[in-house]
Amino acid sequence: MTKVTTGATMSLDGYIADASHGGFDYLFQWYENGDVETPTTHPELTFRTSAVSARHLRDLTERTGALVVGRRLFDMTKGWGGRHPMDVPVVVVTHHVPEGWEAEGDSFVFVTDGIEHAIERAKTIAGDKEVGVNGGTIAAQVIEAGLLDEVHVDLVPVLLGAGIPLFADLKIAPVQLEGPISVVEGTGVTHLAYRVRPAA
Amino acid sequence: MTKVTTGATMSLDGYIADASHGGFDYLFQWYENGDVETPTTHPELTFRTSAVSARHLRDLTERTGALVVGRRLFDMTKGWGGRHPMDVPVVVVTHHVPEGWEAEGDSFVFVTDGIEHAIERAKTIAGDKEVGVNGGTIAAQVIEAGLLDEVHVDLVPVLLGAGIPLFADLKIAPVQLEGPISVVEGTGVTHLAYRVRPAA
Repeated sequence: MTKVTTGATMSLDGYIADASHGGFDYLFQWYENGDVETPTTHPELTFRTSAVSARHLRDLTERTGALVVGRRLFDMTKGWGGRHPMDVPVVVVTHHVPEGWEAEGDSFVFVTDGIEHAIERAKTIAGDKEVGVNGGTIAAQVIEAGLLDEVHVDLVPVLLGAGIPLFADLKIAPVQLEGPISVVEGTGVTHLAYRVRPAA
Repeated sequence: MTKVTTGATMSLDGYIADASHGGFDYLFQWYENGDVETPTTHPELTFRTSAVSARHLRDLTERTGALVVGRRLFDMTKGWGGRHPMDVPVVVVTHHVPEGWEAEGDSFVFVTDGIEHAIERAKTIAGDKEVGVNGGTIAAQVIEAGLLDEVHVDLVPVLLGAGIPLFADLKIAPVQLEGPISVVEGTGVTHLAYRVRPAA
């Protein structure tokens, strides 16, 4: 069975973004606070992390066979310039295929009939690898549909005090998890993984 | 130097309370999901946790020489019936000494001239033990005054989706921490400790 996971870098007080206070700088310090390089498909984007976090990133890349993202993230990143930095196909959940794009390409597949079909499509692409779900709003929908298997949190030792929560207004909360099934201590970040407990 | 710490049980998505969804039941499961008993000064309040969490609670009790709390928590708990369950003196930050109480007792000291004096008073009482600060609002004030040394989080594998954040609207955010300086895995809870990085 193809596993479906989501992950985010989060402050100790539960925020994944806080532009107004400059929170991004603090949240993503761990991507550049070491000397082990992890290249991406984008020459200008190379992570420089601790050895532990580099291994964590490499494991994640090796495990991931496809991504599912929302239209907003796709638009924000302008389709990552044509190919996602993780070098995997991306299934985009949207109402309409964006202008200038094929509905089905090697790098992007646009699914217009809902989150369940997007996950199904991504699972077919991923095969025995994992499907990663990106963006809190889309991830919350996948949790609500009962289709998420794991939540990964890269916990950063900073208090932001306010910002965008990990999963805002989850409609089926509380959602019970099991674990952590994995705790990996990097430098300036703790990589945690939890399993979603199937609904009773 | 007497260390000043604060601690809270928190959901993976950053909430310390969520009454409307019944979040309390989920957050505090770890206090009753094991068979090792930790008694308190209150005969009706005994924790039944895993052995790991029982040791964690005992260490906390042994380390703590005084508590600092806000008036709201004191009122809510009706002064814990006269003595705090951890069996330590409590310094209450308030505008006025509540009716029927002495300003200075063995169990409670009411400080009416601000958080700095409350912490100072508690440090004198605690001696070479620690001062624990309870209640997110008071803890945030102690952080803002530059007087907090450590943040302890008992991280629970549940998503609440909404609720009361760990430290809402911290006025000096972002606050950088160091660590975790300690990671203890209980059953249904991960006990994390962080050091507050002194302001530059």
